[in-house]
Amino acid sequence: MESFPISGTYTDLYELTMGEAYFLEGRKDDAACFDYFFRKVPNAGGYVLFAGLQDLLEVLETLHFTDTDIAFLRKLHFRPAYIDFLRGFQFRGSVYSVMEGEVIFPNCPILRVEGTLFETQLVETLLLNLLNFESLIATKASRMRHVAGKRLLSDFGLRRAHGPGGVLAARAAIVGGFDSTSNVYAAGLYDIEAVGTMAHSYIESYDSELEAFRAFARSRPDHCIFLTDTYSTLLSGLPNAITVAKELEKQGRRAAGIRLDSGDLAWLSKNARTLLDREGLSYMKIVASNQLDEYVIRSLLEQGAPIDVFGVGTRLVTGQPDASLDGVYKLSMAAGRPRLKLSESIQKVTLPGIKQVWRVMNQNGQFFGADAIGLSGEEYPDRIYDPFEIGKSLEIGQYSLTPLLQPVMEHGKRLSQPPALHEIAAYAAGRLALLPEEYKRFENPHTYKTGISKKLMEMRNHLRNQHKTGKNESPDIGGYSK
Amino acid sequence: MESFPISGTYTDLYELTMGEAYFLEGRKDDAACFDYFFRKVPNAGGYVLFAGLQDLLEVLETLHFTDTDIAFLRKLHFRPAYIDFLRGFQFRGSVYSVMEGEVIFPNCPILRVEGTLFETQLVETLLLNLLNFESLIATKASRMRHVAGKRLLSDFGLRRAHGPGGVLAARAAIVGGFDSTSNVYAAGLYDIEAVGTMAHSYIESYDSELEAFRAFARSRPDHCIFLTDTYSTLLSGLPNAITVAKELEKQGRRAAGIRLDSGDLAWLSKNARTLLDREGLSYMKIVASNQLDEYVIRSLLEQGAPIDVFGVGTRLVTGQPDASLDGVYKLSMAAGRPRLKLSESIQKVTLPGIKQVWRVMNQNGQFFGADAIGLSGEEYPDRIYDPFEIGKSLEIGQYSLTPLLQPVMEHGKRLSQPPALHEIAAYAAGRLALLPEEYKRFENPHTYKTGISKKLMEMRNHLRNQHKTGKNESPDIGGYSK
Repeated sequence: MESFPISGTYTDLYELTMGEAYFLEGRKDDAACFDYFFRKVPNAGGYVLFAGLQDLLEVLETLHFTDTDIAFLRKLHFRPAYIDFLRGFQFRGSVYSVMEGEVIFPNCPILRVEGTLFETQLVETLLLNLLNFESLIATKASRMRHVAGKRLLSDFGLRRAHGPGGVLAARAAIVGGFDSTSNVYAAGLYDIEAVGTMAHSYIESYDSELEAFRAFARSRPDHCIFLTDTYSTLLSGLPNAITVAKELEKQGRRAAGIRLDSGDLAWLSKNARTLLDREGLSYMKIVASNQLDEYVIRSLLEQGAPIDVFGVGTRLVTGQPDASLDGVYKLSMAAGRPRLKLSESIQKVTLPGIKQVWRVMNQNGQFFGADAIGLSGEEYPDRIYDPFEIGKSLEIGQYSLTPLLQPVMEHGKRLSQPPALHEIAAYAAGRLALLPEEYKRFENPHTYKTGISKKLMEMRNHLRNQHKTGKNESPDIGGYSK
Repeated sequence: MESFPISGTYTDLYELTMGEAYFLEGRKDDAACFDYFFRKVPNAGGYVLFAGLQDLLEVLETLHFTDTDIAFLRKLHFRPAYIDFLRGFQFRGSVYSVMEGEVIFPNCPILRVEGTLFETQLVETLLLNLLNFESLIATKASRMRHVAGKRLLSDFGLRRAHGPGGVLAARAAIVGGFDSTSNVYAAGLYDIEAVGTMAHSYIESYDSELEAFRAFARSRPDHCIFLTDTYSTLLSGLPNAITVAKELEKQGRRAAGIRLDSGDLAWLSKNARTLLDREGLSYMKIVASNQLDEYVIRSLLEQGAPIDVFGVGTRLVTGQPDASLDGVYKLSMAAGRPRLKLSESIQKVTLPGIKQVWRVMNQNGQFFGADAIGLSGEEYPDRIYDPFEIGKSLEIGQYSLTPLLQPVMEHGKRLSQPPALHEIAAYAAGRLALLPEEYKRFENPHTYKTGISKKLMEMRNHLRNQHKTGKNESPDIGGYSK
């Protein structure tokens, strides 16, 4: 992946120091399994759209330590024998995952990595780096798609993106339902439609706006979108755009549209539409940009703004305001034994063992409202238990269940050709269509639940009891702890 | 720069379509100048720390269109002659800039690019992408340094960073005053100290925590930081860490410390310090992590938490909550004539011409509270005018003025060896020391002003008057516009 460094050092130092300990203790090849999941839906939403999987698999397939990596690791005083091992390292683990574009929910395993203790631990940081970010942006994009209906959405965000993160953001936006990007590099890398208009500087570089529009029309007669707000949209930009559009008509060409980039976009777009239509230019589209997000787009459309294309920048590519998905990667099995992490908070106790997740569908063929988590060898569970509240359970035998975790990589090799980006986007759209509106609304969306099978619950309880210092024996800590 | 794609297509499509128009109209080699500046300090702060300059210059020096780029551009239907021109393109412009690590303020030119109209326009997107992001993160980091005093600060953020943006974030954090990073790739690339402890998964992979600590101590006897909260910090993690630290002492070694990653960090750190000291382990440091930012660090230290090292992740590398700096790149000169953009808002009218910026120092040798902007050929201005409020002016002849914009690149080549990252960080620390506290406080910081020289004001007024459709002639638009 050209926008991403393929390097064994693209990781946190502790992955490598733990790796050295495993290496020295003869444990590096112990069998292990890690789960990827998240705890909180960002930006007060009701779901997350899973993205980044195909990028991750591409990186895992080619991951290695370069000569530069090895030279740097020598300076960090790792042992020569361990460095020799790293020099020959390749990822040979297996990955089980929900499909990219799946709608996912908190506290539910989305992907698991099986392999040696060394390799499964090493890839933690890069896996989280890719999946957390792309899922954040795909989710944000899908919220804009939700309110934009069939109008076009384009990523304009590279200038405000977090460095080359903007390339991944352009891809993730497509997963979430965007149509195109202004980012030429991402367009080439991921086969996305590249779009663009013109900048204020282009117009200012000419002595008059009309002259600038005419020059642009000579250069791109079939792709003219005139930026109208350099001096004054209604008094200058729009009249000049109309003049040049009519000149193009005389050549048998059609101007593509105008772009509004400041001011009251609702009011300006209505006035512009009226003027364009009155001049017989109803084929000219209106593009709007300037600090858009799902809330502004919804408001514009509620006001009846006749905008055809939304160009979204900062608030798409930064995943603002939360700007992160809190995905984590937790050990569930090592050396043949299930493992868990305890916590004073039951919400943070992990689920041990190698697991499967089932999506439950309701009578209407929509998502039921709770995913079922069991052990991977189990039959479909017909009753699920609240993982956070002992004793609460729910009968689900009457519903249809589909296992979500499927093998996508074995021994370091992908099991199939990666789907095209538009196929992933289509899958995402289809899955979102099955999610009831209550989970898609912006204001206090309903909470999608998880339930665990009886066997998984029993395994977890057994392991918790093994750890003598669990919650039940915690001392009174005087109200200071939370 | 290995973490960043060197590609002429790392840009918005419109830069290339405008470039084609310039090419076809015979204007590509017209002389032009653009200014980089921002309008709003992110995250409600009072200043921004300028970062990313050396990365930008490195990219500009080697920028070109690769064979892959050219192949993709052919698909986008650019004209063959233009593509031939792109194939031979190299950036040969000049850059004038404030020093990396400078403290900067809204509406003041920080950097200007001079060169051909084509090349100065093309680099807009990548320049904004690098400078906006690194400056955002350096600023965030400097706020944490401000409250952390001499305690160590380490970047732990790669897993929540925006893809490879995490590499740039690690660098920018150092500019802002951080000491180290967990990001091995960034450490190697930028010569930053790499640090790390251990993960919960490491401990869980052993049948007991004590066994895990002992194995780690065998592997890294001189660099042991024990993570104490896998099962229970005070009942398990800390007693086990003490046991192994004493075993290390018998071998003549010293454990480096413990890490707290959950729970009440103030309460736990005080208890841990007391227990460690009582056991004669006062040399062991306490590292804290878990959703830290400048506010949490300040609160912890106000409570007297004896924390030696703060590991900061998400809220550093995302620049949360704003997650972006709104830097823009505006044309100020083309074809020998000064240029400006008008706007219904006087705040958004740009400053034309090739400019210089002077930092004004007060009687105490601190920053005065307003930067002076004039034309680059001018003498030091002794009176500055409010750019947003006509008639308001201030005498500054009695103060000391230093020009901030200095040539750093000529004809596409850097004028000096890039400074080391620690030198940039030292410069930043020195400049921040000259900024009065009123601009550094988190709550409603004082606003740093800009003033323009009389000559610049006259040039701007003259150009505004030339555009007949300026603000003064705007129609009554019924209260809809803003």
